[in-house]
Amino acid sequence: MSNLVVSETLQPVLDVIDADLENAIKRLQTFLQIPSISTDSEFTSEVRRCAEHITDDLASIGLDATLHDTIGHPMVVATDDSAGPDAPRVLYYGHYDVQPVQPLEEWDHPPFDGVVIDGPRGKRIVARGAADDKGQLMTFVEAIRAWKSVHGALPVRIVILLEGEEESGSESLVPFLKEHREELLADTCIVCDTSMWDEDTPAITSRLRGLVYIEATLRGPSHDLHSGGYGGSVVNPANALTKILGQLHDDDGRVLIDGFYDDVDEVSSEQINQWNSLGDADALVLESSGAKAIHGEKGFGTLERLWSRPTCDINGLWAGYTGEGAKTVIGATASAKISCRLVASQDPKKIEASLFSFLEKRTPEGCHWTLKSFGAAPAIAVPTDSPWLSAASNALTSIFPNPAVLIGSGGSIPVVGEFQEILGVDAVLVGFSLDDDLIHAPNEKYEVTCFHRGILSQAAILEAYGSTNA
Amino acid sequence: MSNLVVSETLQPVLDVIDADLENAIKRLQTFLQIPSISTDSEFTSEVRRCAEHITDDLASIGLDATLHDTIGHPMVVATDDSAGPDAPRVLYYGHYDVQPVQPLEEWDHPPFDGVVIDGPRGKRIVARGAADDKGQLMTFVEAIRAWKSVHGALPVRIVILLEGEEESGSESLVPFLKEHREELLADTCIVCDTSMWDEDTPAITSRLRGLVYIEATLRGPSHDLHSGGYGGSVVNPANALTKILGQLHDDDGRVLIDGFYDDVDEVSSEQINQWNSLGDADALVLESSGAKAIHGEKGFGTLERLWSRPTCDINGLWAGYTGEGAKTVIGATASAKISCRLVASQDPKKIEASLFSFLEKRTPEGCHWTLKSFGAAPAIAVPTDSPWLSAASNALTSIFPNPAVLIGSGGSIPVVGEFQEILGVDAVLVGFSLDDDLIHAPNEKYEVTCFHRGILSQAAILEAYGSTNA
Repeated sequence: MSNLVVSETLQPVLDVIDADLENAIKRLQTFLQIPSISTDSEFTSEVRRCAEHITDDLASIGLDATLHDTIGHPMVVATDDSAGPDAPRVLYYGHYDVQPVQPLEEWDHPPFDGVVIDGPRGKRIVARGAADDKGQLMTFVEAIRAWKSVHGALPVRIVILLEGEEESGSESLVPFLKEHREELLADTCIVCDTSMWDEDTPAITSRLRGLVYIEATLRGPSHDLHSGGYGGSVVNPANALTKILGQLHDDDGRVLIDGFYDDVDEVSSEQINQWNSLGDADALVLESSGAKAIHGEKGFGTLERLWSRPTCDINGLWAGYTGEGAKTVIGATASAKISCRLVASQDPKKIEASLFSFLEKRTPEGCHWTLKSFGAAPAIAVPTDSPWLSAASNALTSIFPNPAVLIGSGGSIPVVGEFQEILGVDAVLVGFSLDDDLIHAPNEKYEVTCFHRGILSQAAILEAYGSTNA
Repeated sequence: MSNLVVSETLQPVLDVIDADLENAIKRLQTFLQIPSISTDSEFTSEVRRCAEHITDDLASIGLDATLHDTIGHPMVVATDDSAGPDAPRVLYYGHYDVQPVQPLEEWDHPPFDGVVIDGPRGKRIVARGAADDKGQLMTFVEAIRAWKSVHGALPVRIVILLEGEEESGSESLVPFLKEHREELLADTCIVCDTSMWDEDTPAITSRLRGLVYIEATLRGPSHDLHSGGYGGSVVNPANALTKILGQLHDDDGRVLIDGFYDDVDEVSSEQINQWNSLGDADALVLESSGAKAIHGEKGFGTLERLWSRPTCDINGLWAGYTGEGAKTVIGATASAKISCRLVASQDPKKIEASLFSFLEKRTPEGCHWTLKSFGAAPAIAVPTDSPWLSAASNALTSIFPNPAVLIGSGGSIPVVGEFQEILGVDAVLVGFSLDDDLIHAPNEKYEVTCFHRGILSQAAILEAYGSTNA
């Protein structure tokens, strides 16, 4: 609350948020205790239970909340028209599904207990989904709850869309957006699934990388072989796979997939200068990753590489015997999960085809591939000159010690592109996680101070949007 | 029983073996039903139960059988001196431990049920350990049982040594051989853990490759990272590991570890000619492996590569997320199990050091390795001109349709070298498995016809050794 005078309308809402913080944390813990892992079919019923839980919670605030079945996991939609027919309409997006928890043994606390522990920045909530994305989506839910408890009516009309397939390819998203288009139309959109520059510096994300994700299995012999009896006589798929994947990058870190860089847009030197002015990105990356060295495509700075250069990463690798001790086996198959982060104007389908072709061209004699596609999404840019983005930026600046900054993101949020295309609405990407929140990793956490400031910010955005005309 | 006249002493033993075959199969099934997986500490008590079981069985034949505790899994020793003090003494070796069973889902029958099913060569016993090595060691146990049941006294003095750590590095073997040297001394030794040329052609193995087996884990960031947030900024250990392991071989299949071929002995053209006369090795390898193409070091035939050329194989590979679906993670570590098959006169310790150095030289900046050694054993040759080998060869020839042949083996049986060094005895390597027995793989099996002919052969060897003077 450093930079702007807070209105008489907003102040009591912020006071309620402060007073109710302990309860908001408890509600988040209950939400986190439901293991809504969408990629693993064993957890399908838990994903549904989680959708039911958040639907009930939204209804309890006084929203008109509905759980919609899909061919995959449920969608939750909640609306409120208490602002009256002339008020701007805001679409809120978050996802209630979470990543898998492996390796489980590396968690200091069970991933679905949602414990609150002390950390260097004060209290933190540790759980899978704490920062990605349950804690984040609860910032706008709690802000709306507080506003309604104080004023009854909201300053804007709202429609909340909560997805359960964000971590598993969003199979149902496009059909759902098309079918429910009328209900979801809005003047602007808040997507709450991104991070800040640091705990005192809020950020709006204006660039997102795209994603291609595949799984490739190389098959050689019809069954596992004894490495003594067969070693040196037929192809070992694990040997062959490493030889092939070892060719994905040259020694300068450039990806060697054919045509990979053909459609990569150059970034203006103004843009690079703005990024460089943000601070010491290398130090932030090293500290939050625990890595001992910066690494990547030669000739580009770290923020340039993260926000404006494409990558190719092996996300999973498995072959042969991976248990304790020694097993002298030649596995019949060797597998990898491989993804490419994409930037504008790369075409995901073209890159996926080129990656498949990279593998197929290198197929050893007598072997064959099983190739699976887990989705492809383009990179996204949102306009940085809209009144909604400015209003949100001002609202953030009113809550945090430092003014809000514009950043990019190395990650992908495909829904932003779908909203542009199907609903015709540009998202404002506002989130409150930190780079060291360990999302997708063991010991994922969300700082209580981030959660708290996040809720206050969402309340400030609600008010700001109530008086924004676009 | 094709080639020799069977003596009046042997014939009734062979008759008992024929008549008792169904019971011998049942005894093998009971033995196979104990999951004696020595590499996995979860199965330690089952390994012990298996040792107790076979000790009891050997005592029930009338042998003086003892289970010896070691720092690892138990050793079983059984002796019989009924042949009298002047008879030759024969040491028998086999191992009662078995390989792990993963991937369990690829077994058509549970690996420890020991079911008997119909196959193209008649009945077969399907179980982990059926051919490696429980079924094989039971050939001499059953021959001794039959002989004692007919004649009371055996034609030779015997000492049986059964190990429980063959699949897990034989940590206790050398100390045990040294401590029990006197009790184990013998004129000759039968090691029953090798295969035949084909089901009608018995074989004695005179060359074995050595083995170096390591595990290497490359560590980068301190924890798993989101591939969007960090892809392109720090080393991905999975990318780096494939790049490093992809350099293990050149395009001609030669291993690029420094000095790898320095001490490899050339094989005489006579030896290569004898191997080539055995038959179509490529066809055998393709049929039994289910591979669609022959592959390996350029410039050498398949039997040359298998029996006289060293290899380097990745036996296990794991990194990142290996479950269902897509997880956009950069794993903090990437691991491989890597083994080299060695030939004379390669020094296992030198090769292991060179392999470690190969990896360390390629360590990416900011990363480090955790390297484990799982044992190192040299290649072995046994003399082919001994009277014991000739007698065993003739005995085999008396039982099978085709005469016995001399072969090599791509696998390693380090105990043969330890017997030479500590006990001063050369082993005769006689076994009855087939190349398609799927040892170390799902659906491991042992043909009933191989088991039956194996028992008959062991009886014929017993008789032959009773009248061998060396």
